[in-house]
Amino acid sequence: MTAEKVLLLIIDGVSDRPCPDLGNLTPLQAAHTPVLDRIAAEGVCGIMDTIAPGIRPGSDTSHLSLLGYPPREFYTARGPLEAVGTGIRMEPGMIGFRCNYATLDAAGKVSDRRAGRISDTTDLTRAIVDGVDLSEFGIGIQFRSGAGHRAALAFRGDGLGSDVSSNDPKHDGVSPPPFRALSNNPADQKTALALNSFVRQAEQILAGHPLNRDRQSRGLAPATTILIRGGGEMGAFPQFKERYGLSGSVIAAATLINGIGSSVGLRVVPVEGATGSSNTNLSGKVEAVLSELKAQDFVLFNIKGTDEAGHDGDALRKRDFIEKIDSAITPFLSIDGLLIVVCADHSTPCSIRDHSADPVPLVIRGDGVRTDPVRSFDEITCAQGGLNRVTGSALMPIICDMINRAEKYGA
Amino acid sequence: MTAEKVLLLIIDGVSDRPCPDLGNLTPLQAAHTPVLDRIAAEGVCGIMDTIAPGIRPGSDTSHLSLLGYPPREFYTARGPLEAVGTGIRMEPGMIGFRCNYATLDAAGKVSDRRAGRISDTTDLTRAIVDGVDLSEFGIGIQFRSGAGHRAALAFRGDGLGSDVSSNDPKHDGVSPPPFRALSNNPADQKTALALNSFVRQAEQILAGHPLNRDRQSRGLAPATTILIRGGGEMGAFPQFKERYGLSGSVIAAATLINGIGSSVGLRVVPVEGATGSSNTNLSGKVEAVLSELKAQDFVLFNIKGTDEAGHDGDALRKRDFIEKIDSAITPFLSIDGLLIVVCADHSTPCSIRDHSADPVPLVIRGDGVRTDPVRSFDEITCAQGGLNRVTGSALMPIICDMINRAEKYGA
Repeated sequence: MTAEKVLLLIIDGVSDRPCPDLGNLTPLQAAHTPVLDRIAAEGVCGIMDTIAPGIRPGSDTSHLSLLGYPPREFYTARGPLEAVGTGIRMEPGMIGFRCNYATLDAAGKVSDRRAGRISDTTDLTRAIVDGVDLSEFGIGIQFRSGAGHRAALAFRGDGLGSDVSSNDPKHDGVSPPPFRALSNNPADQKTALALNSFVRQAEQILAGHPLNRDRQSRGLAPATTILIRGGGEMGAFPQFKERYGLSGSVIAAATLINGIGSSVGLRVVPVEGATGSSNTNLSGKVEAVLSELKAQDFVLFNIKGTDEAGHDGDALRKRDFIEKIDSAITPFLSIDGLLIVVCADHSTPCSIRDHSADPVPLVIRGDGVRTDPVRSFDEITCAQGGLNRVTGSALMPIICDMINRAEKYGA
Repeated sequence: MTAEKVLLLIIDGVSDRPCPDLGNLTPLQAAHTPVLDRIAAEGVCGIMDTIAPGIRPGSDTSHLSLLGYPPREFYTARGPLEAVGTGIRMEPGMIGFRCNYATLDAAGKVSDRRAGRISDTTDLTRAIVDGVDLSEFGIGIQFRSGAGHRAALAFRGDGLGSDVSSNDPKHDGVSPPPFRALSNNPADQKTALALNSFVRQAEQILAGHPLNRDRQSRGLAPATTILIRGGGEMGAFPQFKERYGLSGSVIAAATLINGIGSSVGLRVVPVEGATGSSNTNLSGKVEAVLSELKAQDFVLFNIKGTDEAGHDGDALRKRDFIEKIDSAITPFLSIDGLLIVVCADHSTPCSIRDHSADPVPLVIRGDGVRTDPVRSFDEITCAQGGLNRVTGSALMPIICDMINRAEKYGA
């Protein structure tokens, strides 16, 4: 009569505002979602401020909050979490950054912030790791490729800060500015100098790399520089298993989400063909979730394509992908003893093509849950549900209570 | 697709409890309000604890909270805010007080706490400003008339406290007690001594003033003393424009509301005939709002007569005035790109003739807002809305998010 295992399905950015392309319905309202609606009908619904009312969440801060790590306490920046997600072993005190391979033109201006959406940077990354030397700063570097044009960089060394500017001009046709410290702290100044040296050395290595010559010969943009942002110092994360007594896994395409999961001690399960877009290998991810649920108490399952459709302002694609998700998650309905929790990490309204603070719909379905009259999973209907309006940092305590794993406070 | 400007209409104390005179409906339920109901139907509704559940708000603390200045952090007392509202330039550290002109009888007992509701005290105030000297305390004074019998007093000087008693006995037939410090702090003792000297000197000036002799000859109560309360030290308010990136105005009859608006940097727009009662120049205020909305990003529009009717326990007058308001605000419906936010600052139930902590109804209507099934603006129906129950200090963050002016927290 009490669920024992937990599936936390975060449909990234699925929450929206009324879309004119959908007759002023939200994509969730417009989509045909028999499975999500059945979960709503059999569960308890509500709306949720993943951080706090009116606070526009990033994907990083919202996922930390949903896992019960309040970002005001645990968030430093996206860089170190991305670094963990690429497989860099970040220890507290190390400085991490997000990177893009990018293309500079002959005048040194950015001509493509994603280097022609280059897809395999393994050889370039290996050459940089082998060739760049920051020992004059007493810095050991780790540098790893992420998905597509993405990568992550980490510095280990004494007296390093993270309050530095980015060299990413964010627009084409502009030269990357040099890094500079954003404070008078010598630690930040040292990091800025080291970053400038890193990029100079990397550019020399990239300039002569055969993979780039090959790309140019095929008319593709070469990866001639590295744009670096999101620097922060890696924090110390109490481990999920110790915090909640639950073993757990994370299944996500996004490096960031895997990095957050890994930082708190969740097992990262890579899935072939998981892209973070609506062309992702959904059935492969669902298979992986089913497999993990056999061994683990808790699985965080992030599906990212909805967020991408929101950022692209494509309400129809968002609706259609929601219908694909709905169909793909059917197998979860028949797992005994499973608490199914479905929500978003934030809204990504197609009308603003970015995250918003509008509360997200939330449903919890499983043995012992109080069933409310809500029979549809969407932003408006869930507000009528039995959970009313809750905060993201309360989700894990609520989940632990529902599976009877919460500590009693008092006697 | 996203609203750009904000009208925050605060119908002061409009929120109520069931009124026997209205068949146990609230005045909002009993009133015929097609405009407010249309706003509810086209918007998203909820209920709001302007400070926190169960906390009975003052008008000062609730307005601070609704503007995003949590009163636990920013509220010192009503005096300094009233002082700002009368036009005194209060700087952080100055001590401000609310004052009434009042009448003492021959035995020195209060016979009228409002000096026969005297309406023009300009000459009396000028005489006091010219005649009172607190230089023996090292204190510079500012003293200004407010509406009717009201005034405000401010002290500037070193070593002044604000933790002092009031000389307002609150009832007729009692002598005003002398001021005394409410602590052992010499700063409070100095302020108490200075207030006693201020009142002694003011009484001498008032006793011989021709305006008072004239009033007596016409059978009107003379203003023979000043009752002083609400002392507090002026705080430092981060300015609204810097906090939210929004320029703004306030349109209100009440000195207090203008003082709060002015303290946070809103432009105060006086309106001829704005009385704070149900006889106010509503159309003039609406015209002023329409005009301000052309130039400003944000307008706070306070209508006070509903609160007065609640304090008077007059449910029928409250209902009738709500209907007047409903009609007067029609022009706001047709402004493109406007986010209309309607709420109360607190409940003022006719049954208790004072403020209560009952949550107030809230509606937000504008481009991009999620529409919920609520079609009526009242205390009960709004509780079924898509916002559920929110806190006053979250209102400005929610508003900024709705107009896409919120900062993203994280990435």
